[in-house]
Amino acid sequence: MTVPPDSSSANQMWGGRFSAGPDAIMQAINASIGFDQRLYAQDIAGSRAHAAMLAAQGIISSKDADAIGEGLLAILSEIEAGKFPFTPELEDIHLNIEARLTERIGEAGKRLHTGRSRNDQVAVDFRLWTRDQCDQAIAGLTGLMRAFLAQAEAGADWVMPGFTHLQTAQPVTWGHHMLAYVEMLARDRSRFEDARRRMNECPLGAAALAGTSFPIDRHATAKALGFDRPTANSLDSVSDRDFALEFLAAASICAMHLSRFAEELVIWSSAQFRFVRLSDKWTTGSSIMPQKKNPDAAELLRAKLGRILGATVALFTVMKGLALTYSKDMQEDKEQVFDAADSLILGLAAMTGMVSDMTANREVLAAAAASGFSTATDLADWLVRALGLPFREAHHVTGTLVAMAEKQGCDLPDLTLPQMQSVHPGVTDEVFGVLGVENSVRSRISYGGTAPDQVRAQVARWKAALG
Amino acid sequence: MTVPPDSSSANQMWGGRFSAGPDAIMQAINASIGFDQRLYAQDIAGSRAHAAMLAAQGIISSKDADAIGEGLLAILSEIEAGKFPFTPELEDIHLNIEARLTERIGEAGKRLHTGRSRNDQVAVDFRLWTRDQCDQAIAGLTGLMRAFLAQAEAGADWVMPGFTHLQTAQPVTWGHHMLAYVEMLARDRSRFEDARRRMNECPLGAAALAGTSFPIDRHATAKALGFDRPTANSLDSVSDRDFALEFLAAASICAMHLSRFAEELVIWSSAQFRFVRLSDKWTTGSSIMPQKKNPDAAELLRAKLGRILGATVALFTVMKGLALTYSKDMQEDKEQVFDAADSLILGLAAMTGMVSDMTANREVLAAAAASGFSTATDLADWLVRALGLPFREAHHVTGTLVAMAEKQGCDLPDLTLPQMQSVHPGVTDEVFGVLGVENSVRSRISYGGTAPDQVRAQVARWKAALG
Amino acid sequence: MTVPPDSSSANQMWGGRFSAGPDAIMQAINASIGFDQRLYAQDIAGSRAHAAMLAAQGIISSKDADAIGEGLLAILSEIEAGKFPFTPELEDIHLNIEARLTERIGEAGKRLHTGRSRNDQVAVDFRLWTRDQCDQAIAGLTGLMRAFLAQAEAGADWVMPGFTHLQTAQPVTWGHHMLAYVEMLARDRSRFEDARRRMNECPLGAAALAGTSFPIDRHATAKALGFDRPTANSLDSVSDRDFALEFLAAASICAMHLSRFAEELVIWSSAQFRFVRLSDKWTTGSSIMPQKKNPDAAELLRAKLGRILGATVALFTVMKGLALTYSKDMQEDKEQVFDAADSLILGLAAMTGMVSDMTANREVLAAAAASGFSTATDLADWLVRALGLPFREAHHVTGTLVAMAEKQGCDLPDLTLPQMQSVHPGVTDEVFGVLGVENSVRSRISYGGTAPDQVRAQVARWKAALG
Amino acid sequence: MTVPPDSSSANQMWGGRFSAGPDAIMQAINASIGFDQRLYAQDIAGSRAHAAMLAAQGIISSKDADAIGEGLLAILSEIEAGKFPFTPELEDIHLNIEARLTERIGEAGKRLHTGRSRNDQVAVDFRLWTRDQCDQAIAGLTGLMRAFLAQAEAGADWVMPGFTHLQTAQPVTWGHHMLAYVEMLARDRSRFEDARRRMNECPLGAAALAGTSFPIDRHATAKALGFDRPTANSLDSVSDRDFALEFLAAASICAMHLSRFAEELVIWSSAQFRFVRLSDKWTTGSSIMPQKKNPDAAELLRAKLGRILGATVALFTVMKGLALTYSKDMQEDKEQVFDAADSLILGLAAMTGMVSDMTANREVLAAAAASGFSTATDLADWLVRALGLPFREAHHVTGTLVAMAEKQGCDLPDLTLPQMQSVHPGVTDEVFGVLGVENSVRSRISYGGTAPDQVRAQVARWKAALG
Repeated sequence: MTVPPDSSSANQMWGGRFSAGPDAIMQAINASIGFDQRLYAQDIAGSRAHAAMLAAQGIISSKDADAIGEGLLAILSEIEAGKFPFTPELEDIHLNIEARLTERIGEAGKRLHTGRSRNDQVAVDFRLWTRDQCDQAIAGLTGLMRAFLAQAEAGADWVMPGFTHLQTAQPVTWGHHMLAYVEMLARDRSRFEDARRRMNECPLGAAALAGTSFPIDRHATAKALGFDRPTANSLDSVSDRDFALEFLAAASICAMHLSRFAEELVIWSSAQFRFVRLSDKWTTGSSIMPQKKNPDAAELLRAKLGRILGATVALFTVMKGLALTYSKDMQEDKEQVFDAADSLILGLAAMTGMVSDMTANREVLAAAAASGFSTATDLADWLVRALGLPFREAHHVTGTLVAMAEKQGCDLPDLTLPQMQSVHPGVTDEVFGVLGVENSVRSRISYGGTAPDQVRAQVARWKAALG
Repeated sequence: MTVPPDSSSANQMWGGRFSAGPDAIMQAINASIGFDQRLYAQDIAGSRAHAAMLAAQGIISSKDADAIGEGLLAILSEIEAGKFPFTPELEDIHLNIEARLTERIGEAGKRLHTGRSRNDQVAVDFRLWTRDQCDQAIAGLTGLMRAFLAQAEAGADWVMPGFTHLQTAQPVTWGHHMLAYVEMLARDRSRFEDARRRMNECPLGAAALAGTSFPIDRHATAKALGFDRPTANSLDSVSDRDFALEFLAAASICAMHLSRFAEELVIWSSAQFRFVRLSDKWTTGSSIMPQKKNPDAAELLRAKLGRILGATVALFTVMKGLALTYSKDMQEDKEQVFDAADSLILGLAAMTGMVSDMTANREVLAAAAASGFSTATDLADWLVRALGLPFREAHHVTGTLVAMAEKQGCDLPDLTLPQMQSVHPGVTDEVFGVLGVENSVRSRISYGGTAPDQVRAQVARWKAALG
Repeated sequence: MTVPPDSSSANQMWGGRFSAGPDAIMQAINASIGFDQRLYAQDIAGSRAHAAMLAAQGIISSKDADAIGEGLLAILSEIEAGKFPFTPELEDIHLNIEARLTERIGEAGKRLHTGRSRNDQVAVDFRLWTRDQCDQAIAGLTGLMRAFLAQAEAGADWVMPGFTHLQTAQPVTWGHHMLAYVEMLARDRSRFEDARRRMNECPLGAAALAGTSFPIDRHATAKALGFDRPTANSLDSVSDRDFALEFLAAASICAMHLSRFAEELVIWSSAQFRFVRLSDKWTTGSSIMPQKKNPDAAELLRAKLGRILGATVALFTVMKGLALTYSKDMQEDKEQVFDAADSLILGLAAMTGMVSDMTANREVLAAAAASGFSTATDLADWLVRALGLPFREAHHVTGTLVAMAEKQGCDLPDLTLPQMQSVHPGVTDEVFGVLGVENSVRSRISYGGTAPDQVRAQVARWKAALG
Repeated sequence: MTVPPDSSSANQMWGGRFSAGPDAIMQAINASIGFDQRLYAQDIAGSRAHAAMLAAQGIISSKDADAIGEGLLAILSEIEAGKFPFTPELEDIHLNIEARLTERIGEAGKRLHTGRSRNDQVAVDFRLWTRDQCDQAIAGLTGLMRAFLAQAEAGADWVMPGFTHLQTAQPVTWGHHMLAYVEMLARDRSRFEDARRRMNECPLGAAALAGTSFPIDRHATAKALGFDRPTANSLDSVSDRDFALEFLAAASICAMHLSRFAEELVIWSSAQFRFVRLSDKWTTGSSIMPQKKNPDAAELLRAKLGRILGATVALFTVMKGLALTYSKDMQEDKEQVFDAADSLILGLAAMTGMVSDMTANREVLAAAAASGFSTATDLADWLVRALGLPFREAHHVTGTLVAMAEKQGCDLPDLTLPQMQSVHPGVTDEVFGVLGVENSVRSRISYGGTAPDQVRAQVARWKAALG
């Protein structure tokens, strides 16, 4: 932790009341410019909309508004060129930009803060930033959905083992497995859309907490900044961080989905599974074991849920029990959301790359699908359909046949008809027709089932939906 | 922890494969009947819809379907009468009910499980239950919104201090403060509505994981159970717990809101604040200090965020990195959601009671609003409007005047005009018109501001919206 | 959620101040008897020590103390026989027992609460309970260590693949892998010992918060209850829940360890790995797939970290920002610790069972250890030792040889000497001596390394330590 | 999120196996040099100890070891001078330093990595760093304890209200309240000491995971780096992050304590409480409300629990269910611990500053202590002692008297003797002696009670302990 050297000069922005300046520790704990400078574009956009509105309402002159608008654009260029002199003495992005504006354009700069406060200013900046992240998440999710969809289309009829408890359960298709993630990601996308819609109200003009006596037009600034409407309660406007929490919650669910496929990639690329081969792009070597090809990217994606969930817990804990309205505690909101959003967007990009590049080992998948008595359910279902057994009895008969096969070290189709009939006399050789994995997956034609035709229908639906 | 005595009999439902029964520890860790019996009504509804569909599709006979339907209703009555013999040997609610059904109606009972599995069965049960909780949360939120709205209407023009950092900032109105919570709760309600809509797809018919070869009609069961449609991917259907996580996330945000008002109630009912008086109904005494009137309900509500956030973290952690599809880890989902939903619904009821019963101390609020230089901003704004000072200069002048008043131990309106003019010569006695709290709040007429007329307009809007 | 029917009678224990009784919702949210009855034995032990001390100090008569002591023992028997009439009207275990005591022994019962309060009473009860859980956790950990140790001793020289990134890295021994968990569990045990030591101070006598004017002897009650000393600050005594948090933190780390071995069991018992075979006692079947043998207990243990971490987060969030001293928020502490302790103790028992019963597939392990170029590091190390290559060069040479072997579809020992020499001319046929897995593990003789002799030495050390 | 421009060059450190370089996204997600450069001093210390040991054991030449040792010192200077060319192509601090070493000293540099791996290297670096943080936390805690102790000594007999439920309960002393925090912080210190002791084992020499065949001396490197001993199991050594989790857990409990005093500071410095005055150093002004003096530092400290708890949850979630041994997921450990340690150490410094600077408003505290029937318990205790009433009856009598006083709008000492006797005829005017707050606190002489003499005794004990 770096504590800057002591600064005894008072913060000039606070006006005449403070006789002593905050010392080094206070500055280290209090200043946010180290991280909130990331909001510069949003801060400038908000200030420009505010200044234009102030002029339209006759609160400041058009000349001042023009000077402010141009000054802010010049500052935007300075920042983007890396030439802006950020200083912790000015605490945050708002005061840094405002002070620089006054430095550049003089008197007019001091009129910008009319009818607003840092409380509504940071609220609008942070909402705009978070709204952008929703858009980026939605775009990233769409890209990842396309990558899974391409895999699904290619392997709509490739058989692989379907697992429950990581035990072979029933044969399924590769395409079907890929589509499961398309469904998850579609829900994620829908959650970010809802969160974006709900946060799309403009807090600007709430001022410190009570609104203002200046005849401002909040509908105008809301519209100028792409919001659906202004917020309806000024106290709530400056104390609300729901939008950040909802973003974090949606990001956590999405990261959980990524962690599941990441786990599958790690397991599937083990020497024991060999279900997939990841490209060199997404794996690394070892400093001591030259043969290793480690699925690092997948492991890191598995871990990102921890990071994003941690950020979520952090902000919930921060917000717990805060009396209205703004409290400084809430300054802890930004770094959490910044970090979670970065992890999410980068994670979506990395997963898209891995999914696009991975190669399924079709032979290994097919062989695995056929082993482990994976068509036992098909046998049970056949007993119900062909012999009219109640399901629970069919289940019992099948269990006995599996135990028999296991004892003999063979698989179900390797049992002879007489052996089968010794367990249930009604079995005919029609039964062997349902014990093959290809037949098995083809038979699962219920809506959303694993049959290749069902998979292709879902692929078609999603391709249409994604355009 | 109670570990039941050793049970050496094998679970008869597992069929012929297991030679040894699970012992006592295994049963204690594995059986879910201790908590999932709470899903009985949903399990029966799901089974009845499934049986009716099986008959409509010709998979079982109408006679069997009728026997199943009636048998299940009889079991429902048994359970509701407290006469159902739940047994941990049968693990969960599904096997308990199915075994009892077969006991009651014989052979037909064994046909019920055709074309489904416990994996899709528990998924549909738990969704139905969680969907009900969304409805209850929405109803509870609406009730609490009405309670805040009634307070807002009564006190639209009562002045009180508005706080930032728990320091007096500017005068606001009681009604305005109450409406801030109406806004929060409205967002909560909207989140539960979105969650409900997103979860309203029916997983029944996904079977174990792959769909089924029986010609089932998933659209029919979805419709019968009030779902919008069946889920589109059978693997996802049995491995998805997004609906539970989204419910928990929405509940956590709502609990955070409750924790904030609870904190205010605790602070406001202290001897130092005396802003409100809570009724005896929501406070308790002390076993040793007879004079105490403790805001226990408020404190417990402040704490409930911990409980609900804990449940949220628990389920996220459980779901992290689970390979598809169903894993037993997911059995840990229900108790978390049960507990969080109970805490939330009870918390909403308790808060509604407290808000309805609380009495604002108008005199104390008004006196507090007038102290602490609360109209300093009004003074600064007047300097901008009347004298044309840039805001930053007005801010500085005001700060100097506040320091002067503080040194004299008086408030702003107690300064004389010459004293004010010694700081800025342009000040006129018009300034005293803006230093009163009544004038101050009346002047905050920006949209969503604290002016009584703004408050009344928002109250009217919300009354219309809530019907 | 069950809200009991409305109760309009006032809580008689609160004395004369309350005119209205808490209604049903208040009782539902406020009463703790539903869960804190679990503290009955601790509450009675604490009260008995307190009464004996009061008599020894002359604060109450010996006759009264005797009546109290006997009355409490009788109540203990009632509770253990399941005959105690717990009632939510009396809120908690303390008032339930005290009221019953007075019912049984009259006047003397009313003298028990002299010089104490529910605040210190619940603090001492809950500490005693948590201290017991530390002891149980320590015992459970010791048992599980023995189970791993038995596996380690049996398989000190069985070779298996050592993994990093779930990729085969280097051959290790089964015993070495088992001992890794012994180390983790030993740290867990040490943490519970530290936590126990730190919590072993007696808060009884802190009274409501300030201490008492009665001439009580806190050292006597501390000693009687097995504490090392009384707590040193009465305010801290009633507001401290560190002991609960430290227990939860230690439990979370332990649960994390269990989750790791659980994950290994799930992966190792897959059809693809087949490293171990779990006994039927710890696995279950499927309701639809008769062949399944699911590692349910392992999966549930993997999930328990979620539950325990959730409890930890819950209590931290509850405690955040509570002004001193006792606040009702803290009533949320017990259910979290109860649930976490239950999960932990049961989890340790289940894991001990699984570890004791599991069977390693030695042939499968050995074959897996030999594949995947697992001795590439041995080759690199040989190049350093025998040819004097700098390690980084040896690493590069080895990487080239692995790539050559991979391209030919063979393993490292299958390359010919000329092939090897084509990459580095200095290689001699001595190299083949280090490419076998048995030689590889035997060579890892650094302290704590995987060589069978090292493993046996560690086994001996642990056997001596565990007695 | 900044994704660096595409880099198509392969990572040269991985040797001959990889044909394609990781692209930009992979580098962004995979490289840790952006944060782990913070471990540079530890990495160099570890490498120096390793090289010296290699020479002592005859594994490398003394000449090479000397070159390595000097080269590393030169690199240390480069880094501290800000002149080291860190590059993400070299992934992490280990490869950056090793590559630079070879650049500087040639061939010898390539011999450094003999008998170790990045897996044990990062484990030792990170342990050393975390161990330092324990020391810093212990020092910071000691400083803060001294600050509280100074306040306690100054105000050992200043009366103030003791609160439960933020309701006035009984009078206590300022010194007693300050000492409550000394107790909490002492437990924190003890936890960091335990954590430090437990983590003080050296993983160096575990190599990749299995130990090494080089004749290294792990006891020598352990001693050189200040560890108590080497770790006993090489698999555990590279997969263990308990030390990080235990540090985070201890930091979370400590942060919870800070959040409690921070909450008190926020409440106490409100206009309604005015219990303390914070110095200008630790408060800030408002951009719009010139009169504000906001307790920003206290609010930020209240929030830091969120940040630290979030980091704790993050790492637990990351570690959940990781199969042994090292997985890349674990790279997510460092940023969490870095951030939590920074927050903690800075928080301790800021709190020490605030506690040292704050001024208690003795008059306000005394007046508050005397109001709100705060000596009702003293009255009840008097009834027990003087009249021999059972406590429960005394409690009831007192409650009736409080209700009487409340109805008359007066305090307990303002009731007349006849009024008191109307409730219980035995009351004498001796009772008025116990109703004063000074007498009340003086009477609480039980060990750890609030009586000034007790406070002074504890202050003396702590002063002796802190030296």
